[in-house]
Amino acid sequence: MKHSIYLNHAATSNHKFEATIQEVSQYLEANNNLNINRGSQNSDELEVIFEARQAFATFFHAPDPAHIIFTANATTSLNMILNGLVKSGDHVITTAVEHNAVARPLHMLERQQNISVSHLRCEPNGKLDPTQMEAQIRPETKVLVMTHASNVLGTILPIKECFEIAKAHGIITVLDSAQTAGFLPIDMEEMLIDVLAFTGHKSLMGLTGIGGFSLAQNMEKEITPWMSGGTGSASLSLEQPNFLPDKFEAGTLNMLGILSLKSALKSINILGLDRIALHERVLTARFLEGLKNLPVTILGSTDPTEMVPVVSITTTLVDPGELSQQLFNRYQIITRSGLHCSPLAHQTAGTLKTGAVRFSFGWNTTIDEIDYTLNALKEILSE
Amino acid sequence: MKHSIYLNHAATSNHKFEATIQEVSQYLEANNNLNINRGSQNSDELEVIFEARQAFATFFHAPDPAHIIFTANATTSLNMILNGLVKSGDHVITTAVEHNAVARPLHMLERQQNISVSHLRCEPNGKLDPTQMEAQIRPETKVLVMTHASNVLGTILPIKECFEIAKAHGIITVLDSAQTAGFLPIDMEEMLIDVLAFTGHKSLMGLTGIGGFSLAQNMEKEITPWMSGGTGSASLSLEQPNFLPDKFEAGTLNMLGILSLKSALKSINILGLDRIALHERVLTARFLEGLKNLPVTILGSTDPTEMVPVVSITTTLVDPGELSQQLFNRYQIITRSGLHCSPLAHQTAGTLKTGAVRFSFGWNTTIDEIDYTLNALKEILSE
Repeated sequence: MKHSIYLNHAATSNHKFEATIQEVSQYLEANNNLNINRGSQNSDELEVIFEARQAFATFFHAPDPAHIIFTANATTSLNMILNGLVKSGDHVITTAVEHNAVARPLHMLERQQNISVSHLRCEPNGKLDPTQMEAQIRPETKVLVMTHASNVLGTILPIKECFEIAKAHGIITVLDSAQTAGFLPIDMEEMLIDVLAFTGHKSLMGLTGIGGFSLAQNMEKEITPWMSGGTGSASLSLEQPNFLPDKFEAGTLNMLGILSLKSALKSINILGLDRIALHERVLTARFLEGLKNLPVTILGSTDPTEMVPVVSITTTLVDPGELSQQLFNRYQIITRSGLHCSPLAHQTAGTLKTGAVRFSFGWNTTIDEIDYTLNALKEILSE
Repeated sequence: MKHSIYLNHAATSNHKFEATIQEVSQYLEANNNLNINRGSQNSDELEVIFEARQAFATFFHAPDPAHIIFTANATTSLNMILNGLVKSGDHVITTAVEHNAVARPLHMLERQQNISVSHLRCEPNGKLDPTQMEAQIRPETKVLVMTHASNVLGTILPIKECFEIAKAHGIITVLDSAQTAGFLPIDMEEMLIDVLAFTGHKSLMGLTGIGGFSLAQNMEKEITPWMSGGTGSASLSLEQPNFLPDKFEAGTLNMLGILSLKSALKSINILGLDRIALHERVLTARFLEGLKNLPVTILGSTDPTEMVPVVSITTTLVDPGELSQQLFNRYQIITRSGLHCSPLAHQTAGTLKTGAVRFSFGWNTTIDEIDYTLNALKEILSE
């Protein structure tokens, strides 16, 4: 194989759908007005954005297209959500495998706003027992924020079980779907999700620079705007508008990003999440099976049905950074080493000092690439 | 003329440079990894981003490429800057013609953080007398934030004069260059700009969804991070890194947006700001000259050398919204009516109740389009 093998889909889906590339390129070539809502004569742009909101409302089972808010990425969404929800004195429950997109904003709120944070324990492989929830709940517990699946360990967390307990206590539930949207089905109503943060450029197969969040009915009333500015609406007032989506969308949106997401979502719906997940689970199963014969330790779950297509490993034979580099230099295999922006997950796994090498698969990953990678690992680790 | 005439460049530059469209499309077609800094094997992306920082550091005369921070847009930049700079008890000076991207975040800080805000007066045409600065300064004045030019009145504000007075009192100077970057030369050092907010999709001719800010030497120490999350650096810590640009860049950046800006900046440098400004000033002069013979009132400056290519008008004969709509329906001329996200500027001009019709010109606007528009106005207003 001469071209590189991209096994870093948990960071970004590098190969977008051909239809998306075509649609985005055509839009660009048409040299159209890429701005929105800033003139009375730009109905094309408004239509694209509205259709994107509609598509996401259906996809996530949100109450209304206006409840879909677009931001630059999941990180912006999570900062906006957490800063908008939590006030001084509040208590927040989260997990021991969160990405820094959740962990750092919470840490900042702890320091600056006098909130307190409790972490639900996870086993070293990332598994979380929902029965520990009750003991963590306090009268001042305002929010439960959880990642849907660990970006290091791959393990899917028991969202519905935890959110059921939270809702029974009037706690607001926030889901970080960065690793799952576009892979697992997400139903806001059925899973009791109050606020759903998503990013566009991973399994949703859009461009970078676009993400958002979706709000359950009336949830907008719980969230104070964190960012403000021009909205092209209610311009007479210096207050951010209190209606959706304008309450949380200040400044010009990423038009091309939204177009790419709308297009990609269409392709995902045509393929079906089941088919996408089956393909990536077959790859994961084959990779895990192959690893059994190699002198490596698998960090997270080893059951392909309970995980996203993310496998992290360590080995006593070579440092993770060095292993990742050799995979690239000698075999053109792109992985990611280090802490994957999740010191919490590595602490849980016991790999905070060393980090790990992460292999993550996507829709365009092939069985041949899995086998080629297993062979590369075998060669490197037998030297 | 059968195609539409786009005179809404103050909102967004709809036609990008052909070279930019080509470069962006080629990048898309190459189906490359659009992510950055999230793996050890993505030097191409890192190089694009570093080159973009380098190009902006030169363009704005910033101290170092790392002092160029990318965000989603100028609004995000201004929220980040103002929230990061201002603490409870601080006093901020701003102007009576600010866009809501400045006015709303300040208003929010006034309400939530107990800061106070003073507005420098402007004449109805937007002119600002810098000698009023001294009287507004208090011991607790922390920041002076000004737009470089009004997005309604077109009037260019006396930045250097105001910033000189501010710096003599140890006040931090923040410039909103949304209406000027890519049209007027901006030299951070010479103009005494501490923090320069910019947007990519207006005169800088990039895509929507990308903007940023540039920091003078040591200015990063004055600004507390407002957003936090994964940076692909110092991942062990739950604190946002304290080095640049990571301190202010959490989450995945808009790779295509950055590429578009880097490409457009190259074209702007080849053309030269002088040539761009001359072209757009000739258009503005011709439009202003033509308006003399029509029953309209011009809101802002009428000296093309003291303004950006933005002309807003009212008339007693027809409501601004109706006029804008007729220009579009009958002549396919795209303008913008309403308050242009700047109630302050309309209050200054005395048009807060009616709004105005804004005509704004760009690099691809032609003399023929100006004449056609003047003729359309003549026809509508003589009925």
